[in-house]
Amino acid sequence: MTTTAVELDPAIKAYVDQQLELIRERQPDNRVTLVVFSGDLDRQLASLVIATGAAAMGLDVSIFYTFWGLSALKKRTTLAGKSLKEKLFALMTPRRPGRMPVSKLNFGGMGRVMLKTMMREKQVASVEELFDMARQMDVKLIACTMSMDVMGITKDELIDGVALGGVATFLGDAARSRVALFV
Amino acid sequence: MTTTAVELDPAIKAYVDQQLELIRERQPDNRVTLVVFSGDLDRQLASLVIATGAAAMGLDVSIFYTFWGLSALKKRTTLAGKSLKEKLFALMTPRRPGRMPVSKLNFGGMGRVMLKTMMREKQVASVEELFDMARQMDVKLIACTMSMDVMGITKDELIDGVALGGVATFLGDAARSRVALFV
Amino acid sequence: MTTTAVELDPAIKAYVDQQLELIRERQPDNRVTLVVFSGDLDRQLASLVIATGAAAMGLDVSIFYTFWGLSALKKRTTLAGKSLKEKLFALMTPRRPGRMPVSKLNFGGMGRVMLKTMMREKQVASVEELFDMARQMDVKLIACTMSMDVMGITKDELIDGVALGGVATFLGDAARSRVALFV
Repeated sequence: MTTTAVELDPAIKAYVDQQLELIRERQPDNRVTLVVFSGDLDRQLASLVIATGAAAMGLDVSIFYTFWGLSALKKRTTLAGKSLKEKLFALMTPRRPGRMPVSKLNFGGMGRVMLKTMMREKQVASVEELFDMARQMDVKLIACTMSMDVMGITKDELIDGVALGGVATFLGDAARSRVALFV
Repeated sequence: MTTTAVELDPAIKAYVDQQLELIRERQPDNRVTLVVFSGDLDRQLASLVIATGAAAMGLDVSIFYTFWGLSALKKRTTLAGKSLKEKLFALMTPRRPGRMPVSKLNFGGMGRVMLKTMMREKQVASVEELFDMARQMDVKLIACTMSMDVMGITKDELIDGVALGGVATFLGDAARSRVALFV
Repeated sequence: MTTTAVELDPAIKAYVDQQLELIRERQPDNRVTLVVFSGDLDRQLASLVIATGAAAMGLDVSIFYTFWGLSALKKRTTLAGKSLKEKLFALMTPRRPGRMPVSKLNFGGMGRVMLKTMMREKQVASVEELFDMARQMDVKLIACTMSMDVMGITKDELIDGVALGGVATFLGDAARSRVALFV
């Protein structure tokens, strides 16, 4: 069909293309953007199922981890150099999704064990496996710098390959996405 | 205005239509898609108010029920044929929205009773009424098959007229929606 | 480039413009719409960071406060004229974001104190400052009338400059937004 285009009067083509460009500027990319605010195992799981599902469908995916959600990106907790309040925060928030509590039926960790066992029995990928799949599928992982700053988390406490970004980074991706969700 | 179109040079019309088609492919339908993850009465209520409001405005609406949200679609709990863990899960999760706890001020069920009484006094539709309205307005209700599988919920424990679907079903609808929310 | 347009055959221009108009009708405005359902300090904070960030990027922003989220708009609690249940609700829900509990690590208010102290130390704007910034940046604040009605909250208990609206108001804004989130 592109051969038709070259036969057109250049003035017509220029007008059409210029008008279309104005429309295209506001069209979303084939992108899904998630803000993961929650540090609950079940919500983290939901976000990873959506992220890997979207990546498998050929969509570009960004996950912006903020507040309690940021725990998903922590590889270790470094107490040295932290203030007392930062140390307390660090000790009370989990490290990596596998240690997270569930939002319901928690019963001092029983809920997590039950959910994880049932997922394994049904051969559903665990949160750790989904997280690794997401990274292999080039899902862009972004740590919220404001949350890192408030909680006193440094870049070397985070897993490798994580981008750092603020609310403008999130909004830049979200405004060009077909789907943006707050989890 | 369509009469103008026939007078045009076919080459021009073909070029314009082809370019527009590329743009239309990425345009959303008049659709709203909700993922209902939460099993809290108040969040279920919020999702149904949005769903019925959108349907009343002429939008197509899909609600994708996942994780704890799936309880909204359960008509009964069948224990026979379930594993011990599945039985425990089934007994600890509520059946139908009317039995759900509220996310705040729960006080062992008092919050639910108070919220429901106040809604009745103010003649606001109850969650059961909103749910029935949603079905009458052709809101598409989809049960997440992965959640059913993990929790050991079978299709005959769900109310009639529910579609089954996975994350691809949800993303297919969400990517073509004007509004997609995670509740 | 607009000079090119006038040289075009009017029939061609009319056809192109008519087709483009159909596409533009479904294009979103440069708008972000948030539903704030939660009355937790941390979620309110996240919504205000997104709202002020979006406003700073030149986007129009609407925040629709519903259910527990509505507390953010309360300037005082008037008990006179309320039913017993409304009084109980009023006393048990916080007033203004600064009094709100956090969703995690609450420990009877300690979480709030810690989060607020750490934000102050890191010179991150407090929720009250962000709220004032949002208003100065013309972020549209809308109180959900159905929630006001159910909880027995009157307009004079709310801060000044708040618009009142229902689900149709929210959906009207959300359907024309580049990003719509449920917080």
